[in-house]
Amino acid sequence: MKVIAVRQKILKANSQAARENRARFSRERVCVVNILGSPGAGKTALLERIAGSNDLSMAVLEGDPETAMDAERMEKAGAAVIQVVTRGTCHLDANMVQLALPRLDYRNRDFLFVENVGNLLCPASFDLGETMRWVVLSTAEGADKPFKYPAAFKTAKAVVINKIDLLPYLDFSMDQVKDGLAQICPKARVFKVSCKTGEGIDPLMGWLRGFSRNPAKTNSKS
Amino acid sequence: MKVIAVRQKILKANSQAARENRARFSRERVCVVNILGSPGAGKTALLERIAGSNDLSMAVLEGDPETAMDAERMEKAGAAVIQVVTRGTCHLDANMVQLALPRLDYRNRDFLFVENVGNLLCPASFDLGETMRWVVLSTAEGADKPFKYPAAFKTAKAVVINKIDLLPYLDFSMDQVKDGLAQICPKARVFKVSCKTGEGIDPLMGWLRGFSRNPAKTNSKS
Repeated sequence: MKVIAVRQKILKANSQAARENRARFSRERVCVVNILGSPGAGKTALLERIAGSNDLSMAVLEGDPETAMDAERMEKAGAAVIQVVTRGTCHLDANMVQLALPRLDYRNRDFLFVENVGNLLCPASFDLGETMRWVVLSTAEGADKPFKYPAAFKTAKAVVINKIDLLPYLDFSMDQVKDGLAQICPKARVFKVSCKTGEGIDPLMGWLRGFSRNPAKTNSKS
Repeated sequence: MKVIAVRQKILKANSQAARENRARFSRERVCVVNILGSPGAGKTALLERIAGSNDLSMAVLEGDPETAMDAERMEKAGAAVIQVVTRGTCHLDANMVQLALPRLDYRNRDFLFVENVGNLLCPASFDLGETMRWVVLSTAEGADKPFKYPAAFKTAKAVVINKIDLLPYLDFSMDQVKDGLAQICPKARVFKVSCKTGEGIDPLMGWLRGFSRNPAKTNSKS
């Protein structure tokens, strides 16, 4: 019982910081996307693809248990970036985001992407004050994941099924994953993409532009 | 500070239960393998392959945040199995294992495999009283994972690099992963396998037989 009580305290403290973050992001008119996914689902690769589209400006907060590898990749891709190394902690929380923001040039950009720690479980419990959540799921992970990890999918505004270039080599059932998503998160937008080949990225970008602070970009929606 | 103190208390309570489990497994002469890995790394597929080898008897404790899908797969594969559904909890702990054991026919079998929750972070902190730990890493996850998730790899007696059948279609650097493993877990045995095609399973099985309770099987080590 003690564990649960403490967990509730942690989540309560997190909610307070998340509320502050949300108020700040709203005041600053920046759309914040919290990206969840397993290790190697392709979260960074997706952000590289988005950064490669030159009509959107973005900043990235990278969360990893160790190393600054992902921040280095995003820097190369041309995004403003800060790396939060959690030293083994399994998720980002709203306070970590709050502490990192003063050192990230995210204001006046269209989007702030938060790439959460690679983990389909713990990050789902921690509101960061984001505008919306995405889950990236790799086809190589298998089609049963929405059923097995419902908490992450339940709050997703978009589910990005990545690595569709591998479909010919996998026993991945698109029907099973669609069935899972229809049951767990029926309102989520589902995008099928290959961050490797670029396939399917355009529809995602078109939808994303609708959340840009700049109405001109919204109108260029594909 | 409170969080850390509580975490220490949780881990201390876990250590006590893990010690009890370890003493029990030693008394019962059963080799217990705690299998860690990301969602979709291929932990269940590996156990299906091992179960397919008819000269070893095994029991499986399946840990999942939701569903009994994996236990159903193991039952089909002919293993004695119990499913522990953690209802969202991100790891198995020694107490969960203790509570499940009376309902699992694992005694007098060569191996008890514990398939931990799909998560490369939290399960690493929880000793279950196992004989040894394995990490299953899918090539589709990328070669940077040992550097990014060192806690899981650091305590692994074996690292099973799965889905090598996908290598022609991935930008996976075997050199980078070998470099990471050499730095993080230099003593771990590394096996490259495809649970889909069966490639590489034989050397792993040969090594595994060395831990069997039955000396005849040990001598048949390939």
